[in-house]
Amino acid sequence: MLKVPAHQVAGHRADGGKLGPLVDDSGRFYKPLQGDERGAREVAFYTSFSSDSKVPDHISRFFPKFYGTQLVEASDGSGMKPHLVLQDLTFSRVHPSVMDIKIGSRTWGPEESAEQIQKCLKKDTESSSLPLGFRLSGMQIFGTKESGFWKPEKKWMQSISTDEVRLLLKKFVSSDTSASRPDCAFASVVYGGSKGILSQLLELKAWFEDQTSYHFFACSILMMFEKELALDRKSPCPEIKLVDFAHVFEGRGVIDHNFLGGLCSLIKFISEILTTPEDSSTNGLLEDVHRSHVYPENGSA
Amino acid sequence: MLKVPAHQVAGHRADGGKLGPLVDDSGRFYKPLQGDERGAREVAFYTSFSSDSKVPDHISRFFPKFYGTQLVEASDGSGMKPHLVLQDLTFSRVHPSVMDIKIGSRTWGPEESAEQIQKCLKKDTESSSLPLGFRLSGMQIFGTKESGFWKPEKKWMQSISTDEVRLLLKKFVSSDTSASRPDCAFASVVYGGSKGILSQLLELKAWFEDQTSYHFFACSILMMFEKELALDRKSPCPEIKLVDFAHVFEGRGVIDHNFLGGLCSLIKFISEILTTPEDSSTNGLLEDVHRSHVYPENGSA
Repeated sequence: MLKVPAHQVAGHRADGGKLGPLVDDSGRFYKPLQGDERGAREVAFYTSFSSDSKVPDHISRFFPKFYGTQLVEASDGSGMKPHLVLQDLTFSRVHPSVMDIKIGSRTWGPEESAEQIQKCLKKDTESSSLPLGFRLSGMQIFGTKESGFWKPEKKWMQSISTDEVRLLLKKFVSSDTSASRPDCAFASVVYGGSKGILSQLLELKAWFEDQTSYHFFACSILMMFEKELALDRKSPCPEIKLVDFAHVFEGRGVIDHNFLGGLCSLIKFISEILTTPEDSSTNGLLEDVHRSHVYPENGSA
Repeated sequence: MLKVPAHQVAGHRADGGKLGPLVDDSGRFYKPLQGDERGAREVAFYTSFSSDSKVPDHISRFFPKFYGTQLVEASDGSGMKPHLVLQDLTFSRVHPSVMDIKIGSRTWGPEESAEQIQKCLKKDTESSSLPLGFRLSGMQIFGTKESGFWKPEKKWMQSISTDEVRLLLKKFVSSDTSASRPDCAFASVVYGGSKGILSQLLELKAWFEDQTSYHFFACSILMMFEKELALDRKSPCPEIKLVDFAHVFEGRGVIDHNFLGGLCSLIKFISEILTTPEDSSTNGLLEDVHRSHVYPENGSA
């Protein structure tokens, strides 16, 4: 029996009779193929990438496993539709804190229409993509079993300032989502360490400095971890994954400088949180963030 | 007595009664201040940067020395006009081969008008800026005392392909500019080595991964060397310098991901020439390049 994913923080959602991705109980994620060239491009990417022997294992682990395409009953009741069958990235997780970060100051690829370019450029300009090289597309932070997940409003996230981005990256690894100052209590075990998120981002960066096969536009990095494990003094299993490949194009011998630039910018933000967690530039911003909502763990958000 | 610079390969030139930069015989370069906000921004940048104690010496050496501003008789006969007084970067050189590379896939900064953005976006799209993260804005390669300098046509350079960019980067360090295949004879002594251009670009890259004070739009890297010294088995004095700061903006705590991405892309091109100079992907392109012109050393180009 397919169901709506519990921990999806960005993109189209399948609840309320809409078309969106589904998951099964064996760890697979069914993403409806977009009918236009985006669907075709995403299939082409997964097909090519999953059989590309030049991609080293320590890099391919950052991508969802690909199990082909399959006709599946669509979530909007429109009948059997082709879906990408992928790894359900949060399958083995209990209460994952998840952040979806769209990488690149430019989210449009080389083959877009003039109209599409202007639409993307407007969104990139109004969001943090243009100034920061990335934007936060969605997130959930686990609080407690009682309070459930804290999810800021998506609409608010689309137009936040640099300091608010910095604050959310701190809040993501703090013990209390409603505290007036994020304490970054889990920064060292989530962002830091040899298996932490910064380390993984740096591995990805080294690959992007060299690979000239793929250019990733409007692609996201998911950052995930389990706060409860950290509270138990176990590793919170910090992990990054790349998702959304409807705008991947051939690199034609050139590095993906748009993705790489944004990735380096994100790396700088995370590094600064590790070196100066007490930096006060994000004080006074909490008012804004608290316009956002808290959803219970079983919430319908 | 001020005169027109001999080795300027890009930008407005002062010959033919036009407004452009001048040099004196003591090693100073006089750049007319653009009357609008561009002139003000360039003065502000040089003033701030030249007194910025956070910039390490091994980075500030990549920038022209700044000697303030001065009223100077303008080259177009319009009378005394304010000029930036800068270091003449080719003052101590004899027959410099020079390449001007505008860095960044986006050449417009955060405060441009909608009209200016569309104009720059069009130019970035039609040139190699968008696909490669940089574009070649001008170059001269010294041949021999008899043949003088080889300079490709600027108009042609504005719309060259990725393979043609690669070819020009090879030709720049080859022994014969008219040979049908560039031999990259000087690649190892110009691009390579601990004091070569690649090394210098990597030092610059490390700084750009960290610095969050300045964002450089439409700024160029000049690459220079002396072919005759290489022929004499001496160091050809390979050197990079950054120029053109009319579109530098405050970084406000964010790295310059646009410049950094383009710089990493250029680094990848140069690295590939050092590791696989014999790569054949640039064959068959020479016809195009030979539409370009050869100018004698004392030429009026």
